[in-house]
Amino acid sequence: MTSNPQLDRHGALRHLLSIEGLPRDVLTHILDTATPFVSVAEREVKKVPVLRGKSVFNLFFENSTRTRTTFEIAAKRLSADVINLNINASSTSKGESLLDTIANLSAMDADMFVVRHAQSGAPFLIARHVREGISVINAGDGRHQHPTQGLLDAYTIRHYKGGFTDLTVAVVGDVLHSRVARSQIHALSTLGVPEIRVVGPKTLVPDSFSRMGVRVFQRMEEALAGVDVVSMLRLQNERMDGGLLPSAQEYFKTYGLTLERLARAKHDAIVLHPGPMNRGVEIESGVADGAQSVILPQVSFGIAVRMAVMSILAVG
Amino acid sequence: MTSNPQLDRHGALRHLLSIEGLPRDVLTHILDTATPFVSVAEREVKKVPVLRGKSVFNLFFENSTRTRTTFEIAAKRLSADVINLNINASSTSKGESLLDTIANLSAMDADMFVVRHAQSGAPFLIARHVREGISVINAGDGRHQHPTQGLLDAYTIRHYKGGFTDLTVAVVGDVLHSRVARSQIHALSTLGVPEIRVVGPKTLVPDSFSRMGVRVFQRMEEALAGVDVVSMLRLQNERMDGGLLPSAQEYFKTYGLTLERLARAKHDAIVLHPGPMNRGVEIESGVADGAQSVILPQVSFGIAVRMAVMSILAVG
Amino acid sequence: MTSNPQLDRHGALRHLLSIEGLPRDVLTHILDTATPFVSVAEREVKKVPVLRGKSVFNLFFENSTRTRTTFEIAAKRLSADVINLNINASSTSKGESLLDTIANLSAMDADMFVVRHAQSGAPFLIARHVREGISVINAGDGRHQHPTQGLLDAYTIRHYKGGFTDLTVAVVGDVLHSRVARSQIHALSTLGVPEIRVVGPKTLVPDSFSRMGVRVFQRMEEALAGVDVVSMLRLQNERMDGGLLPSAQEYFKTYGLTLERLARAKHDAIVLHPGPMNRGVEIESGVADGAQSVILPQVSFGIAVRMAVMSILAVG
Repeated sequence: MTSNPQLDRHGALRHLLSIEGLPRDVLTHILDTATPFVSVAEREVKKVPVLRGKSVFNLFFENSTRTRTTFEIAAKRLSADVINLNINASSTSKGESLLDTIANLSAMDADMFVVRHAQSGAPFLIARHVREGISVINAGDGRHQHPTQGLLDAYTIRHYKGGFTDLTVAVVGDVLHSRVARSQIHALSTLGVPEIRVVGPKTLVPDSFSRMGVRVFQRMEEALAGVDVVSMLRLQNERMDGGLLPSAQEYFKTYGLTLERLARAKHDAIVLHPGPMNRGVEIESGVADGAQSVILPQVSFGIAVRMAVMSILAVG
Repeated sequence: MTSNPQLDRHGALRHLLSIEGLPRDVLTHILDTATPFVSVAEREVKKVPVLRGKSVFNLFFENSTRTRTTFEIAAKRLSADVINLNINASSTSKGESLLDTIANLSAMDADMFVVRHAQSGAPFLIARHVREGISVINAGDGRHQHPTQGLLDAYTIRHYKGGFTDLTVAVVGDVLHSRVARSQIHALSTLGVPEIRVVGPKTLVPDSFSRMGVRVFQRMEEALAGVDVVSMLRLQNERMDGGLLPSAQEYFKTYGLTLERLARAKHDAIVLHPGPMNRGVEIESGVADGAQSVILPQVSFGIAVRMAVMSILAVG
Repeated sequence: MTSNPQLDRHGALRHLLSIEGLPRDVLTHILDTATPFVSVAEREVKKVPVLRGKSVFNLFFENSTRTRTTFEIAAKRLSADVINLNINASSTSKGESLLDTIANLSAMDADMFVVRHAQSGAPFLIARHVREGISVINAGDGRHQHPTQGLLDAYTIRHYKGGFTDLTVAVVGDVLHSRVARSQIHALSTLGVPEIRVVGPKTLVPDSFSRMGVRVFQRMEEALAGVDVVSMLRLQNERMDGGLLPSAQEYFKTYGLTLERLARAKHDAIVLHPGPMNRGVEIESGVADGAQSVILPQVSFGIAVRMAVMSILAVG
């Protein structure tokens, strides 16, 4: 019995809304389920019938072609029927409430909603109101969570490092505003990473973060010393406009990941980035395209992880 | 033999353009065909191979995500290949005529066109020019018709009331400008509903409607007295801007469906609404979410009815 | 061994970027492969499993509903999973480079990219950077090439004329700015058409074209005399705004294809147009809808030719 809306009363995954609140065995089950789907992508026929005859709705209240594409591919490789809905232009503009829109789409016998929304918490609201049998996946809500990103980061790290329990991970950049960082930190600490460091300008990485169980650094050189994983965040240009940051050049000088700085990490450290990258702002091209970069594998694993989440929700 | 472009010379459905002009047995056949499709939606694998290898084009000359979605789902559950075309942004902006666009798409070996157009009559024009073997479904043309909406309303009423021949139905709101009302009234009178009432402000429900064989009311309380079905219409905000209506609050005071007013109807009367609803304008939330509301079942039945129309057209 | 990025080292097609540089046997193989696909379109179930489980990405950096639709249908009839990406609104607006976008999409285990781009050469750039096993099809790049259009023109001509080696073909209109003309001229000369004529205003058909091995005419009457094929080009309105052309009426008077002018051609000459047509500007309706017009068959053959290209690339 639990009050977590993501789990049913047997503790099985019913929605994927946030990494926060998911126990380690649920996360591990998702990662384990993803593994065979990685090899599906390498087959001649990249398709399995797990979601045949199921209807997956991509509800994008905020435009994100890249994220929508990853879910669309994942659903199609599971043989689902996929309906893409760009909701800005639709009923909400006719004054219909979010919950009426959801009730309406639910009545079309949807099986799964993949929800992207600019407002934190919107997928939770939706999950509370969909009818029995429909699952909701959070594909990014405001500054809150992006759980499949956290999971694919974890998958990538486990793939290259073999586990979590003896790792040091540095998360670099705008931790304050990043749903990617939030999901990643929750995932990694739940999975047992003993030391998570965050580093960035004080405006974006305030000392208060230490309450989350992470170590706060202001200097890159210290934060990267001896780490196994460097997880870069995308720098939102809006932040600079907002005066929270100096210029891009200034940022790069202090927090950009260069080959020189990366040399502080372990020699076999890996570098993650959720994309899209700002080369020359948060990351040097030599690092992005270098031997330690696992940025493109992250994308491939991301499809497999989303297939895993969908198949667990569909079967559950 | 008939000159109705919707029927072939054996009286079978060839296009669905308008409820007007369709005989009762054709309507009944569509409703009967829909019944098994309702249960398809409840199965694990919501898919039948009726339209496998057929190409259904959603030609939306006017944006309507909701309606497009219902047709897209219906076609995909019938295993069709669906192509969504938003035509505003396309060839017509390059100065190509509507008929050239249609000829062009027909040459791509389309099997079915689902057409939404701001101009009344556009689907008829298209139906007259497509080549043998291609069917056209009107998904809403101007103020003229929205035949699948009329059919799903009829299906819903038959589902809850068991038939049509002893019913009194009240249609409430902007009857003048509503293609939903027009299609519904045609469907219900063809199917044998003996008394159809229309009610709304004089500007939107002129006395001349009585020529259509309906009874015209100006007062809600009278119109609802003893009815079996209350069919609410969506209030278009444009009407208020145009001066045809007072404010939304004013409208609700006089024509909004409240629980109090609904009590005038039979105790087992049902309430329909085509969506999206304006809560607090044409309908009170207590009614919309109440026990007599069949608004969400309408949506589910709408998918089944569209599957029925498509499968009849494909086989015909 | 070859340095042509379109061919592998055995001379088999690896990408379709440009007609230029493709040997005759490759072109002929595509046309031959298209023939059975023409009959697929006439079957009850218009689907073959050639691309089952493959992911085809339509990457449209420039909007073109019509062209996107032809590729989408072709891919779906081959049973591929199709992902439509309108890239204007996407990552590139977030400052990501084209090559990072492509690397990212490649990592999603794409099998094929269909690329439309306003800049000449963009599909070549992409082809140089995709990973082994991914094929790129140019669906129109700037003023450069539109190879599937050239191929479908060739297919249409061969279908009606039985071959190429004794034909005279006139290409009419804005040859200078037309990727259609460029692809067509390359295709037809490679396939052995002995005489290709180009005709249009001096500003759009400069004398320098004669270096391409075509005969340059300024007067329609002379250019059409005795030809087997008249290939009309679409007149871009932008040209008139740009001062390169007089008014549409003026253009039609001098270069419009009328029935009277068409009478100069052989009595069984065929008329091609890539669409969308400007009736009354470059072509008279009597010609467009007349017995010699093969404009709609071009569209049908276009689907088959695109299926052929995709299936050759997928199997290769």
